[in-house]
Amino acid sequence: MKYPMTIGNLIECFKKLPGIGEKTAERYALSILDLDDEILNLFADSLINVKKRIKRCKKCHNLTENDFCEICQDITRDKKTVCVVEEPKNIMSFEKAGTYHGMYHVLDGLISPLDGINPEDINLDSLIKRIENDEIEEVIIAIKPCIEGETTSLYITRKLKDKNVKISKIAYGIPLGADMGYVDPLTLEISLENRQQIS
Amino acid sequence: MKYPMTIGNLIECFKKLPGIGEKTAERYALSILDLDDEILNLFADSLINVKKRIKRCKKCHNLTENDFCEICQDITRDKKTVCVVEEPKNIMSFEKAGTYHGMYHVLDGLISPLDGINPEDINLDSLIKRIENDEIEEVIIAIKPCIEGETTSLYITRKLKDKNVKISKIAYGIPLGADMGYVDPLTLEISLENRQQIS
Repeated sequence: MKYPMTIGNLIECFKKLPGIGEKTAERYALSILDLDDEILNLFADSLINVKKRIKRCKKCHNLTENDFCEICQDITRDKKTVCVVEEPKNIMSFEKAGTYHGMYHVLDGLISPLDGINPEDINLDSLIKRIENDEIEEVIIAIKPCIEGETTSLYITRKLKDKNVKISKIAYGIPLGADMGYVDPLTLEISLENRQQIS
Repeated sequence: MKYPMTIGNLIECFKKLPGIGEKTAERYALSILDLDDEILNLFADSLINVKKRIKRCKKCHNLTENDFCEICQDITRDKKTVCVVEEPKNIMSFEKAGTYHGMYHVLDGLISPLDGINPEDINLDSLIKRIENDEIEEVIIAIKPCIEGETTSLYITRKLKDKNVKISKIAYGIPLGADMGYVDPLTLEISLENRQQIS
């Protein structure tokens, strides 16, 4: 016995989402039967339209339904600082923290020669051009600590070394609220290396 | 800054599914951008149609797109045995195990006077009628072990005590592959109580 076709189809669709296996897909598909029609129509409509409506901002490559994203259009923000991130969702993390008021630039990937991802495959050219044209004063590299991240960071630093622009990197170390006993050795090592004198 | 509207809507829709919070909904919504149009159309279509197409089987209350479910229509199955389960998805679990070839009956709930669920609120009348009309020989109660389950089981047993029908209950005990050290005390107790003489 199999599930009726529509439920079977729903299960298959849910399984396409990241990290969803058979059991969870089944649970989600069956829970759809309990949702209001209003939500289901919005859900279906959003699924069909999201790829048509969502574009990339022509300046920073953030997700937007217009030519330029909300942040690039915001005249109150500091246009002289650019925070370089890997993915659009990283912007949301910074925005939720709420203390950064500059611009962003989404790379859409990190340099990784082993995976065949070269500098020209990610949004690096547009970053360099932007720094030249928009008279950016500081570039903050906010990429996760990993080999690809370091390579990308190094590439940006080299490309900009003759430009009159300050380059910084967000701090790596022990996260707030962490229990020292559970911090991994590499993070401990980096937190020692990057220690700051306080007196 | 917020996500563009279509993505925001998708996030809200995913949050309606069981156990999905803000972060997971965000992850699923963004992953939709990477799916093929074909899948998205099927997904949207299934969401809209699932509630219209899926009905309950007129005999056993299983999910179906027709008047009677696949199992009730299957002439090769043993019509004299009925396995009573709480939800339609329980049927799928038994079918995956693949050794049971009788019929099912979905109660759609368990008797729970504290929650205001009385015998007439679940599919018990139709079960009793079925047993009388279809000349059922054995009723297997396959409900999870809990107070509501026991109450429901007791109710069925009493209702059927004058009928010429065998009533059984699936075995509760240590699941296969379990480590004895991790089995909870109640399961251990029930497995002792229900011990079987082997020699």
